[in-house]
Amino acid sequence: MSISEFDLIDRYVAGATAGRDDVALGIGDDCALLRPPPGQILAVSVDTLVAGRHFFPNVDPESLGHKSLAVNLSDLAAMGATPAWATLALTMPTADEHWLEAFMAGFSALAAEHRVQLVGGDTTRGPLSVSVQVHGFVAAEAALRRSGGQIGDWLFVSGTLGDAALALRQVHDGEVGRVQKQRLERPIPRVALGILLRRFASAAIDVSDGLVSDLGHLCHASGVGACLALSNLPLSNAVATACANGDWELPLAGGDDYELLFSVPPDRVGAMRAACAEAGHRVSAVGRFIDDSGIRLIYPDGNESKEVPGGFDHFRD
Amino acid sequence: MSISEFDLIDRYVAGATAGRDDVALGIGDDCALLRPPPGQILAVSVDTLVAGRHFFPNVDPESLGHKSLAVNLSDLAAMGATPAWATLALTMPTADEHWLEAFMAGFSALAAEHRVQLVGGDTTRGPLSVSVQVHGFVAAEAALRRSGGQIGDWLFVSGTLGDAALALRQVHDGEVGRVQKQRLERPIPRVALGILLRRFASAAIDVSDGLVSDLGHLCHASGVGACLALSNLPLSNAVATACANGDWELPLAGGDDYELLFSVPPDRVGAMRAACAEAGHRVSAVGRFIDDSGIRLIYPDGNESKEVPGGFDHFRD
Repeated sequence: MSISEFDLIDRYVAGATAGRDDVALGIGDDCALLRPPPGQILAVSVDTLVAGRHFFPNVDPESLGHKSLAVNLSDLAAMGATPAWATLALTMPTADEHWLEAFMAGFSALAAEHRVQLVGGDTTRGPLSVSVQVHGFVAAEAALRRSGGQIGDWLFVSGTLGDAALALRQVHDGEVGRVQKQRLERPIPRVALGILLRRFASAAIDVSDGLVSDLGHLCHASGVGACLALSNLPLSNAVATACANGDWELPLAGGDDYELLFSVPPDRVGAMRAACAEAGHRVSAVGRFIDDSGIRLIYPDGNESKEVPGGFDHFRD
Repeated sequence: MSISEFDLIDRYVAGATAGRDDVALGIGDDCALLRPPPGQILAVSVDTLVAGRHFFPNVDPESLGHKSLAVNLSDLAAMGATPAWATLALTMPTADEHWLEAFMAGFSALAAEHRVQLVGGDTTRGPLSVSVQVHGFVAAEAALRRSGGQIGDWLFVSGTLGDAALALRQVHDGEVGRVQKQRLERPIPRVALGILLRRFASAAIDVSDGLVSDLGHLCHASGVGACLALSNLPLSNAVATACANGDWELPLAGGDDYELLFSVPPDRVGAMRAACAEAGHRVSAVGRFIDDSGIRLIYPDGNESKEVPGGFDHFRD
């Protein structure tokens, strides 16, 4: 390999995304210079994906480029923020041009969908890992914090749950379904839904660690408990089949769903449902905040339990 | 190891730095919420340090915490920006509490010096690496871009050059000098100097890849050439000894100096020198921008050369 870091960045990274008017200076100086819009608050989030931990080392690089931005846009969505800028810290074992070109193609296609400009980054050599930071805007009073939930608010979740986790199981078994592969490798950040929910939701989070784990964060921040009606969980046919056999781990603790979990006060539910239907967002009522501690799971047969499979934790063996 | 990612963050990361009034929401939600000051532009930079590449895997974690923030603050300094917020993406092989506590102590001490609040991050498991992003402010017209240099501007450098590179050599030879170890492991970002230079400098960069390499970036961005008078380079006694033996690689191509290299129009040099002297910043005139291509090195014996040792490049073997 003789291509230099500077050549790599010039060739594949610097011009990878379209320019925005609020970027005074992009890639190529000591810092990027950015103009946040007056009257808005800046929302930032950073997520790292590590080879062998968050993805298979031989993953399709285009999908990885997509996912590394998607998981971050999902955090902006959970805040109700409009995406604007991203930075990329990419560590690669070798300067593999074909790999980088494909990675950036996946990254850039998703960036274009959301008008995100890549404004800075660092390319280093080492074990494969990708750290992306995103920046978005939201009016301070409209931001969807985790802490705004009230007892009696209804809990909703977007899309379907458990397919990414099912994909991981299927990898071990040998054959991965098309839908599941797509959900694992190319999650769709619910950015437009997050922006719509500014008008309705009392609290929100994205489901990355698993439904029960992330609901636990919402409950903790809002100082409430919750009940979940498992019969109401939105499931694909494949995941529903597993659950019908009594195995609820996929939708409850699978993780990597990148759907939004949010609470809505009872008097806003009708308007929220109408707005979502009009915009084409699938949302399902899955439970309520209650005056209790912890999370009560109500199984389809009427049994209740507080015993839940644990969510994903990077440091738990 | 049974401590979870959430426990680690709660215990060692979330409260590691003091709060700022412009942080509406710090660590603990999907995004941090930040209020940029009106009328200023946002400067952002991200740098990754990878074990075995940028530091020895057995490095003192407190020093690594310092350095991971310092190299980023150095980029803000090179832009003339005032530091404000940081995020930390930390990948560690195991949840080692003692290591993390020491790392955060080093990070936090430097953050406190510069009133930087840690507002977000991600802690993941994998091969040790640290990616920090910093955010600062500067008036748009005052930002020190690389591209503002003019033919005839004087070139200055802060501090001394080559000691970090000498430390790396000394590691191989067995004994590292105190000064060199300090320069390698705990570089001092020239933040106050960068802010002062808003009033004087036409262009600036921080010396991280090596003097000649980084001067090349300045020349390229400004569309000028440069001459460097090697007899004027600011050197410690140890580095000067190496140079006296004809070995100029340390100050010219060593890298990891984190000093500022900047250009000043002739009619501003006097005022800049006076301001630096008053504030206690050591700066040395090392050359000028010239109407030529490339960089001319003028050796103490009067010989000239365009042959220079190459700067550090992560992907060049």
